[in-house]
Amino acid sequence: MTTTILFAAPQDSWDAYRAPLTEALDATGIDYRLSRDIPAEEVEYIVYAPSSGLTDFTGFPKLKAVLSLWAGVEKIVGNDRLTVPLTRMVDDEGLTQGMVEYVTGHALRHHLGMDAHIVNPDHRWEGKAPPLARERPVTVLGLGMLGRACARQLAQIGFPVTGWSRTPREIEGIRCLSGTEGLAEALSGAQIVVLLLPSTPQTENTLGAEQFALLAPGAAIINPGRGPLIDDEALLAALDSGQVGQATLDVFRVEPLPQDHPFWAHPRVTVTPHIAAETRADSASRVIAENVRRGVTGAPLLHLVDRGAGY
Amino acid sequence: MTTTILFAAPQDSWDAYRAPLTEALDATGIDYRLSRDIPAEEVEYIVYAPSSGLTDFTGFPKLKAVLSLWAGVEKIVGNDRLTVPLTRMVDDEGLTQGMVEYVTGHALRHHLGMDAHIVNPDHRWEGKAPPLARERPVTVLGLGMLGRACARQLAQIGFPVTGWSRTPREIEGIRCLSGTEGLAEALSGAQIVVLLLPSTPQTENTLGAEQFALLAPGAAIINPGRGPLIDDEALLAALDSGQVGQATLDVFRVEPLPQDHPFWAHPRVTVTPHIAAETRADSASRVIAENVRRGVTGAPLLHLVDRGAGY
Repeated sequence: MTTTILFAAPQDSWDAYRAPLTEALDATGIDYRLSRDIPAEEVEYIVYAPSSGLTDFTGFPKLKAVLSLWAGVEKIVGNDRLTVPLTRMVDDEGLTQGMVEYVTGHALRHHLGMDAHIVNPDHRWEGKAPPLARERPVTVLGLGMLGRACARQLAQIGFPVTGWSRTPREIEGIRCLSGTEGLAEALSGAQIVVLLLPSTPQTENTLGAEQFALLAPGAAIINPGRGPLIDDEALLAALDSGQVGQATLDVFRVEPLPQDHPFWAHPRVTVTPHIAAETRADSASRVIAENVRRGVTGAPLLHLVDRGAGY
Repeated sequence: MTTTILFAAPQDSWDAYRAPLTEALDATGIDYRLSRDIPAEEVEYIVYAPSSGLTDFTGFPKLKAVLSLWAGVEKIVGNDRLTVPLTRMVDDEGLTQGMVEYVTGHALRHHLGMDAHIVNPDHRWEGKAPPLARERPVTVLGLGMLGRACARQLAQIGFPVTGWSRTPREIEGIRCLSGTEGLAEALSGAQIVVLLLPSTPQTENTLGAEQFALLAPGAAIINPGRGPLIDDEALLAALDSGQVGQATLDVFRVEPLPQDHPFWAHPRVTVTPHIAAETRADSASRVIAENVRRGVTGAPLLHLVDRGAGY
């Protein structure tokens, strides 16, 4: 029997995924039909991106699961017109590696004080060697797949790394803290903070005025996680007071970041356009295909979203 | 018998080294006198920086060795008024680690295309995720202590790394090439090139017009090695043609880089003021003290300079 798979994502995604997803599905050996145009009553699986505009899943009577191409599912997890299992994109090797490169690069940029040399209109031959990484405490908030990988890479380079997660974790070479009290301890004296938490009602404004005050003066913030993790107003105040020295932000409450948002003009904020980690079509296609295969053969789906926890 | 050690380096070096060098010498158990002011006829060891201005070593009748605080000895190696053994600063853990951090940070900066976001006056929400490091070939010229450490770190992060050295080397995980023919092969298609060769007559202008032409169009050059390794005019021409996309330079033929040098004003050149790697006083002091101990006890000195090879 033919399994019907609707690809519900914009044209540029289809251009990127059509070949690798076909290849990955072919490799599973199942009989399938993959298309952007399938009558609703025949659709069994939806490969999904929120940018498709699809929000009502009630009109697909045979729908068995929605397979998100994105790691973050906050735009769909609370959707009450979605009642079938929802999986998110996890352990895509490309996604993780891209995030590790972004986080490591920007952590080293802040550590080395690169910006003073990149933008140096007065041509000043000034500055001395920065301290070594081992003297620069870094804290990673969130120890899921991405947070763990980034924490490990930063520790490998020589930074003393503290990791924080909601529930306790253990990672070799990383000081791991958890819970509310652990958060204050993790932030105390940190010189670089990396945000890799999921966006949930519980994680909103994880960094606000109270938390910024705990950091080492002049600390750098790197947020490639989710926009709502930071209280924007509190961050701007902390930047203006100097308590936060620099912020590199890849995600925002509204994207693209509106032109009148003060982050754009702030001299010590770097805006990157949600590029820290991109799902790579080849490796992501293998994850999607494996879940279709599991669905067809009755095996449990990978990376099922816990609708209560929100991720 | 008291061993007399002249500290021939500027006041700021003395301020930095006095305490850690005293501590390191104390730990050797030898009887010594360390000072910036010792009668020439009593001096047995000179701890040396070229910035001391000392160039005539003929007036020290008891001189046994000159121990350079610097890794690069090109300013002294050809000095015919220096006839005693000369050692250079090698395997200083701080020097190596600092260099690894600088090279890794700037390689990731070029790889990620950070500058377009750091300097973005029009507030453009543009740009897509860069390719992964595994698709960005990096070549490291020079596989001494520093080059090897950088090559290994870049490979660990995921870059495909080619290393080149004058004489053949083997390093696990690195494609190692050598000799004149190997140089052309090492540069062909490289997207990031890191220069960590010593400065010798043979290495002058290692990168000139012919070599730049071999690189992938738009390649980035990182030179934390020595200024004369690059033909400045050829680099400027390659930058203007676009063959070289960006250059990050930490060392120059004349330092500080003269204000009228075109590197300062070039929009795609980043000048850093010779800070890529700084000898750290604590670890460097242990290296110096160990060599004094070896000299006193008749053991062979570490890191002896080969005056013929020039390093």
